[in-house]
Amino acid sequence: MTYQAPVDDILAALKAAGAFDPGMMNADLDEETVRAILEEAGKFGADVLDPLNRVGDKTGSHLEDGLVLTPPGWADAYSQFAAAGWPALPCPAEYGGQGLPSAVAMGVCEIWNAANLAFGMCPLLTNGAIDALHIGGSDELKARYLPPMISGRWTGTMNLTEPQAGSDLNAVATRAVAAGDGTYRLTGTKIYISYGDHDLTENIIHLVLARLPNAPPGTRGISLFLVPKFSVNDDGSLGARNDVVCAGLEHKLGIVASPTCVMKFGEGDGAIGYLVGEENRGLNVMFVMMNAARLAVGVQGVAIAERATQKALHFARERRQGRAAGSKDMAPIIAHPDVRRMLLTMRTLTQAARGICMTTAAATDLSHNADDSETRARAADRVALLTPIAKAFSTDVAVEVASLGIQIHGGMGFIEEAGAAQYLRDARILPIYEGTNGIQAIDLVTRKLPLSGGNAVTSYFADVITTLKALRAANLTGFDFAIEQMGRALEALATATDWMGRQSQSTPGIALAGATPYLHLFSLVAAGDALARSALQAGNDPAPIAHLRFFAENRSVTAWGLAASIMAGHSVVLDADLGAIR
Amino acid sequence: MTYQAPVDDILAALKAAGAFDPGMMNADLDEETVRAILEEAGKFGADVLDPLNRVGDKTGSHLEDGLVLTPPGWADAYSQFAAAGWPALPCPAEYGGQGLPSAVAMGVCEIWNAANLAFGMCPLLTNGAIDALHIGGSDELKARYLPPMISGRWTGTMNLTEPQAGSDLNAVATRAVAAGDGTYRLTGTKIYISYGDHDLTENIIHLVLARLPNAPPGTRGISLFLVPKFSVNDDGSLGARNDVVCAGLEHKLGIVASPTCVMKFGEGDGAIGYLVGEENRGLNVMFVMMNAARLAVGVQGVAIAERATQKALHFARERRQGRAAGSKDMAPIIAHPDVRRMLLTMRTLTQAARGICMTTAAATDLSHNADDSETRARAADRVALLTPIAKAFSTDVAVEVASLGIQIHGGMGFIEEAGAAQYLRDARILPIYEGTNGIQAIDLVTRKLPLSGGNAVTSYFADVITTLKALRAANLTGFDFAIEQMGRALEALATATDWMGRQSQSTPGIALAGATPYLHLFSLVAAGDALARSALQAGNDPAPIAHLRFFAENRSVTAWGLAASIMAGHSVVLDADLGAIR
Repeated sequence: MTYQAPVDDILAALKAAGAFDPGMMNADLDEETVRAILEEAGKFGADVLDPLNRVGDKTGSHLEDGLVLTPPGWADAYSQFAAAGWPALPCPAEYGGQGLPSAVAMGVCEIWNAANLAFGMCPLLTNGAIDALHIGGSDELKARYLPPMISGRWTGTMNLTEPQAGSDLNAVATRAVAAGDGTYRLTGTKIYISYGDHDLTENIIHLVLARLPNAPPGTRGISLFLVPKFSVNDDGSLGARNDVVCAGLEHKLGIVASPTCVMKFGEGDGAIGYLVGEENRGLNVMFVMMNAARLAVGVQGVAIAERATQKALHFARERRQGRAAGSKDMAPIIAHPDVRRMLLTMRTLTQAARGICMTTAAATDLSHNADDSETRARAADRVALLTPIAKAFSTDVAVEVASLGIQIHGGMGFIEEAGAAQYLRDARILPIYEGTNGIQAIDLVTRKLPLSGGNAVTSYFADVITTLKALRAANLTGFDFAIEQMGRALEALATATDWMGRQSQSTPGIALAGATPYLHLFSLVAAGDALARSALQAGNDPAPIAHLRFFAENRSVTAWGLAASIMAGHSVVLDADLGAIR
Repeated sequence: MTYQAPVDDILAALKAAGAFDPGMMNADLDEETVRAILEEAGKFGADVLDPLNRVGDKTGSHLEDGLVLTPPGWADAYSQFAAAGWPALPCPAEYGGQGLPSAVAMGVCEIWNAANLAFGMCPLLTNGAIDALHIGGSDELKARYLPPMISGRWTGTMNLTEPQAGSDLNAVATRAVAAGDGTYRLTGTKIYISYGDHDLTENIIHLVLARLPNAPPGTRGISLFLVPKFSVNDDGSLGARNDVVCAGLEHKLGIVASPTCVMKFGEGDGAIGYLVGEENRGLNVMFVMMNAARLAVGVQGVAIAERATQKALHFARERRQGRAAGSKDMAPIIAHPDVRRMLLTMRTLTQAARGICMTTAAATDLSHNADDSETRARAADRVALLTPIAKAFSTDVAVEVASLGIQIHGGMGFIEEAGAAQYLRDARILPIYEGTNGIQAIDLVTRKLPLSGGNAVTSYFADVITTLKALRAANLTGFDFAIEQMGRALEALATATDWMGRQSQSTPGIALAGATPYLHLFSLVAAGDALARSALQAGNDPAPIAHLRFFAENRSVTAWGLAASIMAGHSVVLDADLGAIR
């Protein structure tokens, strides 16, 4: 079946996140305009990107004579993508972008990645490079490089990881030396560089972390450089090929069509690079854009979960197996309670993840656009707090939902032609890249809980209490147990949060040992809150109300178990000598 | 790294399951003999099967001119496997087998499947065919077919599934017509037939479900037939090729080397078949062997979980990333609390699954060998009760553990060459075949809970209470909270079991809607019980004690959440109209 962009659901999530509240949207963006954008994106996704998803998975990208060739049809699809102006959507207006709010941009981002995750990677990473350059680059660099990147004529990459340094940027060893003319020469190897080379555009702009001579050790000695594949002349035309090549492609479990490159910088005289931001302050630029990139990966999780859910629902309506109670005919398997439970789990988790991501995106917009600085600061705290949840929860959901999608297909789910298996293979990278979900949990516990003296988290809890009050006031039929469980989940989270705060100061190891279950507990509350805000605005639509109740009765109920795991389950983790983990 | 058979752990699980208790083992099998068997199997697995695992995954099996060619090296490995006498291990002595107890056979089965799951499928399914033939076949059929199957000269297959009938055997449509000479002619198509054709042996014996003319509709009209690839002359030599061919191979997510065949019976004059058991009673034979087959699939889950854990542990000891608290050097990632939590989860779940499978296997032996019929009957109840747990829990564990294994590898986990991804791809079939895990849950709730008037389950609970008492008496340091949680988990299960019993009679749909969380809750208790019995015999070994405590503090704690999900979470599952699942 063809992907159908869930325009109504995305709009509902935008509304529930407050994205249409006064002052949030650009003046010219009302709901109908946003709907029109999402519907156009949905058409492009369904008509152009979706048909390339399977062929991309089967064919993959290939390295020939040092150049990467994308699968048949991809270059043409990218040209259409750029010609339609899609790359410019979320980008700054001063350099040719359309400056759409983050919340709308994330809705469109979901559509690209649901239609074709391996394709969606390319604009997603280009946006990251545009953000970094926009944040940190000189006016001259921005003027030269941003317009063609924003128009889609060139793409961008992020070059962080090195063979000896996976998640640990302390160990970055790529070297940069000043050439005396204001430029630098880079030497080193980067791995896992998505779209590090390809045949979609005439030029590729690499943003590269590297170390200057005499730079301080560790992360305080890392600088950021712009390294174009082809140098750019003053008139904007392309000059000589730079000393950067793709030396190999990885053979991956999923997103097979997305070329994951080993990039060699400076195999000859050194790759010509341009400093972005200040010397040794490269990570500051990276960290500013990292929240946006992590949120976008969370949205990729929503995208795959949506796609897997659509496919499983379609299958469960068509496939007839067994008899429903009281019938002699073969029933569509959606009639069987256990299958319904799986489908409701898939749909509910998808909506919850979308709600959390949209809440984070709307807070991003508020952090940029609010009139008063206090509101902006509070919104920035909210973004910082929710970003690890949006990234980790949504990508865990993607894997769980894609796996359930296989299960609903039965034996067919294991056959590649059916398509359900690809979603699990594709989804499996999401909990790993842009900071593993373990790193998200550690970030939440060590950096985000202490934020603004703890006010970031307490003000969030206050908002959750407001949602719960509104839920109680709404008097939904049959919700007594559900609301009780959501209240208990918040109590469990508050208790665990106090406890975590004490541990972080006295015995950080204990806090770290509980970081992942703590993130899971936090996610339970955040997901319940997002689903509740959707249910409260649902009007006559029974679906969001059913999703909320299903979540509360089947997931929120596990909150105190997670709290026990955090507050008691750490001792074995820390005490067990290595012999006990054998 | 090469697979190392966990001989000590398998022996410990055998002991904890009571497999060495008086009267359980054959007279000539003491612990040292069993250790020697496991060590020999471990050597064969490591030296012969493990090296073929990656090449099998990369190359796969191929169909050429109607014949299936296995990957390079596989036919030779199979010849060595048969020559060493391994196929005969679990088989009846009267037909040339070694008659090893089920518990020991399952230990060896784990080793084959850990070393190479796609290879292990072949003897596993042959054992199923041998069982069915042994249970249901006439003396003549058994004398002609069992010895060469048991010696490994021929393999066997199970032909149940048809395109229109996945999990639903009511819909079996393959036809069998009496030929008048005591044989039958079969016509029809079967799908998902593992090793339906291959080049490992000279003959293949298919056991096929089919329908006679005028057979009653549904499952009461299904008969079982033996259909050899080549007919067998009276002197045991091979005769004419039978009218059965492999018409296609599936392109699968995992176990790529195991040929999954579309089998066409009777494209010409009809495939010659021999009735196994009585007409229309084929499912009776199938059901008797089904417990054994489901347990064996559970053991495949243990196998993959073990393999993934070994690999992740090895990686976590070698890979250095980040600093440990208080150190300036890069630490092996096993030093990081979050990684330790993942590793402990992997190891603990693997041991729990192994413990449940071994408990079920030992009960199988007791059900055959006990002196008094009451003990045999009680043991048979225990096998019936625990089999859906062994199958579903162990295979869910396989997927969870294999996925954690990828996560521990970080970006490398997503690269196929690293090998961690294959375990997830391979493992993903296990919750689907031999009855999906949803079907296991329904079997548990609808067939196993009412068994022997409910005594099957109450006598199991009594044994769990005995384990808990012994655990309290053992006075393990720091176990107060853990034991409390295990007690609470049993209370939750007992409460949910009573509730399920009432629902099953009044409103079966409600019981079905809670079947999967009920199976999860039951698994929590069964896993805790198995880990506790291991811990109680651990002596000076800290590992089983650490695993028990970790499980109790991090998993048993979720029991009441699951109970709430069962007893409250069903209403939305059943009430939500199809519009709410969209």
